[in-house]
Order: sequence, then structure tokens, then C-alpha cells
Amino acid sequence: MGERLLVIGGDAAGMAAAAQARRRAPTLEIVALEKGNWTSYSACGIPYLASGAVHEIEDLVVRTPEDFRAMHIDVRTQHEVVGLDLEARRAEVHNLAHDRTFHLGFDMLHIATGARPRRPDLPGADLPHVHGVQTLDDSSRLLADAGKRRVKRVTVIGSGYVGLELAEAFVVRGATVTVIEARPEVMGSLDPDMGALVARALRNRGIDVRVGVRAEAITETHVRTAAGDIAADLVILGLGVEPNSGLGTEAGLQTGVHEGLEVDRQQRTSADGVWAAGDCCQSVHVVSGHPVYVALGTVANKQGRVAGINMSGGYATFPGVLGTAVTRVCQTEIGRTGLTEDEAKRAGFSAVASRIDATTAAGYMPESHPITVKVVAERRSGRLLGAQIVGGHGSAKRVDVVAAALSGHLTVEDLVGLDLGYAPPFSPVWDPVQVAARAVLPQL
Amino acid sequence: MGERLLVIGGDAAGMAAAAQARRRAPTLEIVALEKGNWTSYSACGIPYLASGAVHEIEDLVVRTPEDFRAMHIDVRTQHEVVGLDLEARRAEVHNLAHDRTFHLGFDMLHIATGARPRRPDLPGADLPHVHGVQTLDDSSRLLADAGKRRVKRVTVIGSGYVGLELAEAFVVRGATVTVIEARPEVMGSLDPDMGALVARALRNRGIDVRVGVRAEAITETHVRTAAGDIAADLVILGLGVEPNSGLGTEAGLQTGVHEGLEVDRQQRTSADGVWAAGDCCQSVHVVSGHPVYVALGTVANKQGRVAGINMSGGYATFPGVLGTAVTRVCQTEIGRTGLTEDEAKRAGFSAVASRIDATTAAGYMPESHPITVKVVAERRSGRLLGAQIVGGHGSAKRVDVVAAALSGHLTVEDLVGLDLGYAPPFSPVWDPVQVAARAVLPQL
Repeated sequence: MGERLLVIGGDAAGMAAAAQARRRAPTLEIVALEKGNWTSYSACGIPYLASGAVHEIEDLVVRTPEDFRAMHIDVRTQHEVVGLDLEARRAEVHNLAHDRTFHLGFDMLHIATGARPRRPDLPGADLPHVHGVQTLDDSSRLLADAGKRRVKRVTVIGSGYVGLELAEAFVVRGATVTVIEARPEVMGSLDPDMGALVARALRNRGIDVRVGVRAEAITETHVRTAAGDIAADLVILGLGVEPNSGLGTEAGLQTGVHEGLEVDRQQRTSADGVWAAGDCCQSVHVVSGHPVYVALGTVANKQGRVAGINMSGGYATFPGVLGTAVTRVCQTEIGRTGLTEDEAKRAGFSAVASRIDATTAAGYMPESHPITVKVVAERRSGRLLGAQIVGGHGSAKRVDVVAAALSGHLTVEDLVGLDLGYAPPFSPVWDPVQVAARAVLPQL
Repeated sequence: MGERLLVIGGDAAGMAAAAQARRRAPTLEIVALEKGNWTSYSACGIPYLASGAVHEIEDLVVRTPEDFRAMHIDVRTQHEVVGLDLEARRAEVHNLAHDRTFHLGFDMLHIATGARPRRPDLPGADLPHVHGVQTLDDSSRLLADAGKRRVKRVTVIGSGYVGLELAEAFVVRGATVTVIEARPEVMGSLDPDMGALVARALRNRGIDVRVGVRAEAITETHVRTAAGDIAADLVILGLGVEPNSGLGTEAGLQTGVHEGLEVDRQQRTSADGVWAAGDCCQSVHVVSGHPVYVALGTVANKQGRVAGINMSGGYATFPGVLGTAVTRVCQTEIGRTGLTEDEAKRAGFSAVASRIDATTAAGYMPESHPITVKVVAERRSGRLLGAQIVGGHGSAKRVDVVAAALSGHLTVEDLVGLDLGYAPPFSPVWDPVQVAARAVLPQL
């Protein structure tokens, strides 16, 4: 009998590894256990399912269990791993459908248990109309709940990407939506001056945005805050996620400051023959060199691929994250990469920043929309540290050029000199990112 | 009396330098001479003026002579410099409006005389209905000519960016349009396999595209080719441009293999106190290290800025070009940067390439359009050499991430690992550029 690879978790980080391993090691036995009902899906598509832009939950599934079985990967849904014995190379598995538990041995183990929504420690946080949304199963429950009652008033607690995307989705569905954020500005992944532009877009869409307001309790009809009660027949948690790393830590694997599983460049955990990837892991930030926790599908896919190559005898490394993220909320595009001004200062950089307003295309073209770009750089060296973008159609993906520049260790002067594409429908002759880079030069 | 800077040419390369010099050297006298009627305009916008997407020629003007005069830059239009004496520091100037000639002394000289459309050496090439389009004055003549006659049949000779953009503009105006290209495929700045996708888009729009066909003569009613006559009451030259460098070469300045003025990293010509920038210069290609001729507004602006900083006591360098270019023709977006597969081989690289089909956004989103990406890399080292993109909305500007990666000397493996922005409206979880990079890895 050949070796067996056990994969825990059937979404991106698990199945990208399984697929790589399958391709490279044809005789390897691969078993993938997923506690939910779906494999390889786009959790990022859930808000579009909620808004109706995407019609069927199946549209979000990239590969079904059947697809994987056709690749000779033994995928079992509704199978939850409840314990790991790394010495004995054995997992304790609970078959949820048949409510029975069994043991499964493995030679190699890949942990891709993902993340779970952060739940506030509040009275009422576990009421059935309070939804954290991370998996397709979560989204089924949310949409079933919203569908069976005519939801009229939705409150989103927190203002992360998914929370704001769902806030908009429920506006599209005809609900009255409130967003409450404990910090002074929405979207804490941006500097407050850029977050303010997002708040304005939300308010223009009719969303009641309350910043500096903390939820104190949730009842069946309200969210209670120091600034008064907010009527809510549906509550969405938009507080971000935390690593679902308990299985690994209980088995003795090391975790980092963010409670994510510690992995090296090859996605190897602290135990021999055990890999991990995706939302259950911590990562290293390319710019700061610090460990960070970034739970995003792109990272999960890349880490899964790297783990799969390494566990099947190849060699690949994951270079770290830049915290690149893009989204669109209320017709406003948002992008960020690298360090914000606040993050740069906390990481020990003497940072300078510029913020400029420009247009996404030549001003005389119908494709032209407003765009605001903030560039952060290290003083004296001119090293590029990060960028944030808020603007109209054509704005967000411009952070990619900064992401590439960060990975190439370019300076802002280099960014000014970059030979970027220009044509009237796509850009002014100086790309807005370069206009922002130029504006930071005098401060160096 | 203080020093005088004479700028020859009132478009991007000239006026970007003048504006920088003005800001940094307040007491410098700056005289800028422009033989045409316009300053600082977007020549790239001309096709949109022709199609009617842009309504007024003035919309394409970024800064008027009056704007510059308000900055204390003495701009004179209809003033053509007809001779230069670099020893005597004196220019011979022809005032076209009053038909008189005078001499003007200078301490520093900046040559930004631009480019002129390549004209084929054919019988009839100088007939009045044969238009090369490079300046706003050219476009006035073209539109006046097209307006006073009801142009029904347009033939474009050559298939460069501007030629194809104008071909589409005349389709929009209701004309029957033919494009003839002597090479085996349209758009020679792409590899033929990518150019074929552009040809398909043109044909789908009803443009009669004939490749491998050379114009032999132009008459008042036809373009004559070996493959038969093509009726044409308007002929557009889409053969690209050549440097308008005669003034500099007659004054003894050195030129390179592309007949562009030779400049160093600071945009200094071979003569002391004489700078040059923009379409009249040659550049250095960042990837190949070879001298190249690239006539584009972005390059002109960047080189003008660098020249202006240096001539006013600062220090800046132009890092070279990647040949990045983007356009949109017949709803199809086109982008390229770095070396094509053909160029890489000619430059002495052992090059490998991949070409993949993907979508611009998550496949389940309404924003999703087809996109084809070709990535070129150096064998063994995996060094990224270039990329080409043809696809629907959201395709072209993706070359920018490759442009940044090229300037950062990244490998295709680095490109695969880049932390690029992902959200369903903007990208699949693996950006198409990364899918193409992954596809090239096995060939290294």
C-alpha cells in the first residue's frame, strides 16, 4: 500500500494542495475531509449571492466533490475531524451525516481548517438572527433566515469588507441598513482619511453609518449601544475572522501571535510531515517582515499550491503577504496593499504619505471617474511601503502595480518612472498611482 | 539679465520640462516655441475626437498658451525653429503667422520636436486625401477633410495603434473601412498569435482586414495593391511615426540607430547645455538594454519632467522604457509590455512563452469577460521578459503589474506569488496574469 495524504478542509487551501499533490504524485492516496457540504467555493461571492447579482449557490462552487473524485481524490463532506494524534499518525473523524466516529490513519497531513467569524462577547450574540458569514453553509443559513422572514432592518456590527458588502446587498434587497463601528472610522484596514471616503459612499447609498459606537447587547429586536438602541431584525457580524486553528494547537502545533498556525516558507508546520495553508495560518508580511494574519482566498490558494508541491516531492515557497485587498461597495472601489500610514509607523518606519485626487481615465473621456490615491513611503530611503485607493470604476485593481512594486523593493522614485500603460479610456497620461508617488517625493 | 532656456516644441516633452524648470528656477527666462497652434495636448485623444466620443478639439488641450503665460513661460505658437547654432547659442526662428524670420539666443536649449507619421514611398502618397495623424493640427485637417466631403470608403495603410483606433472611429462615422497590413498579421507590436485576436475583433466590427497586402500606389479613388484595387476616398497612414530629429542632427547632435536623438539618463544630448525629450529621442529598453524608439505620451511626459529637473539644477534620471502600451479597439482591450516572444528571441534571449484564456472577473459575475494573456520568460533563469493581453473590459491595464514586475527584475515564479487584489467583480482568485505565469513554469 502506498502513502496516504489526509487533507482537513475542502475549500481553497485544502483542495489546491490536494490537486497539486494529485498531479505530481499519481500513486499517493489522498483523502480530503470537509465538515460542511461544499468544496472549493468562492466565499467572496457570498455578498453577490445575497444581493441577487449571482443567482445560485452552486454558481460559487469551482469544483464539486464529484469533480475531485474524478481526479481520484477521495473527498468526504460532512466529515469533521475532531482530534489528531500526530505521533500515531491518526485522525479521529466524526461523520456528521451518520453521526458516527472513526479513526483514519495518515502518512502526511495537510491542515486547511480555515477561519471563523469573530463573535463579540455580548449578551445575545448567539441569538439565531445573528449571523457570521464565512462559509457557504453560513450563507445558506443567512439567506434562508432572511428569506423566510421579510427582513426590514439589518444592522451590521463592524465594518470589514464582508460586512460592508453584505450591508449593500441588503440595501439592494430593500432593507434599511445600519452599520456600527467601534473605531472612529469604517474599514480599519485603511487609514482613517481613506476610510472616511468609504463612509461617505455608504451614506450616499442610504446606509446609516455610526462610527465610534460599540454594540453592548443584542436582543431579538434591537442592537443596544451607549448611543441608543438600533432596531434590527437581522444582525450581521462584520468583525472579521479568526483562525480555526484549535485542531492543530490541540495536537501540539505551534501558533504565532495571531493564533494562526506557524508555518515556514514551504508551508510546513512545527511537526514533521504536517503542512498547513490558508485562513488557519499566520503569514509573514513582505514589507514589515512581521507575522500577520490575513484571511483571503488568494492567499489560501497560493499557500495551498505551495504546500501541495512540497508535500509531493517538489519545492516551492510562499513569499509572504502584502495585505493586498480590493472590493467594491456602493459603486465605490476600494483597494489597499502594503502598509497603511498607521501600520508603517507602528512597524517602526519613519513614514511619509501623500493623498491626491485624480481621474481613472483622461478627463475628457466618458470613462473618467474620480479616484483618490494615498501612497506611503519610508522617509529618506524613499522605499515604497504601501498604497490605498478609493474611487469610481477602474480604481481598485490599480493597487496591483504597487503590490508588484513592493515585491520588487522599488522606491517611490522608481514608481514615478515606471512605464505604465496609457490610453485615454484607461488612464490620464500620468497614472493616478504615479501622481500620488510624485506628491510624496518632496516629503522624503 | 538672467539665463534663458529655449524650449522647441510645445507639447508634452517640451512643456513638462518648461513647467518643472519654472517651478524650480523662478528667475530663469523660459521661451517655448511651437510651430503649430496648440500646446500640451493629448494626441492620443484624436481618435476619440474623430469618433465623436470627444466633442471639441479644445477638450484635448491640457494647458493652453495662456495657461503657460500665466506661469511666466513665454509660449509662442506658429513659431518654427528652422536652424540652430549651438556654438553661438542662437536659434533661427520663422514666425509663420507673419512670415518673418528672426534670431533668438539661449543659454540652455531643450529640444522636444516630436515625431511625424511615416509616409510610404508610393506614387500618390502626398495626395490631399492621404492623412498622417500625429498632431492636433493634423487632426483638424483630417476632420475638416472628412467633414466637407461625405467620406464613404476609408482605407488605413498599416495597423499600428492610431491607425486601428481611427479605423474604428470611421466605422462609427458610418464609413466602410479597410485596413491593409503588409506583414502577416495586424499590430506588429504584438506577437502574431496575439495580433490574430485583434484582427478577429476588427473583422467582427465589419472592418475589412487584409494582411500580407502591400499598398503599391494611391490614386484619388483607390489604393492599388498586388491583390487588387481598394476603393478609398480617404486614406489614413497607420505606419507609425519617426523622430522629427532633423533640427538636432543638422546642429551636430548625435543620433542613434533609430534616428532619434541620443540622450543619457538625464536626457542630456551630446552637446553641453542641450537636452532633449519625447518622440524626437531614442530610449533604452529596460529589459533588453538596447536602444529603442518608442513614441508615446507617457514617455514624453516622464522624459520632459526629468529634463526639466536636471536643467534647473536638480537631479533626476529616466530609467528607460518597457514599451508598455494599451489601447481599445472595437470593444477589445489590448496591452503589452516588455518584450514579445519575437523581440526576446531577436534580443538574444532563449525565451519561452505561455498563452492562456481566462476571465477578467470571477466567472459567475456579470463583470466577467474573456481575456487572453501571453507571458514571455527567459528559459532556465525564469526571468520575466514581457506580457501581452487581448480581451474584454478590464483586460488592458493588467499589463501594468507586469511592467512593475519587469522593473523590479522579478521572475515568473515571483509573479505567481505576487499578492494581487482579488474580489469577484475584479478578478478570478488567480489573476489571469498569474495563470499565464503559472503556465510558463513547466517550460523553464
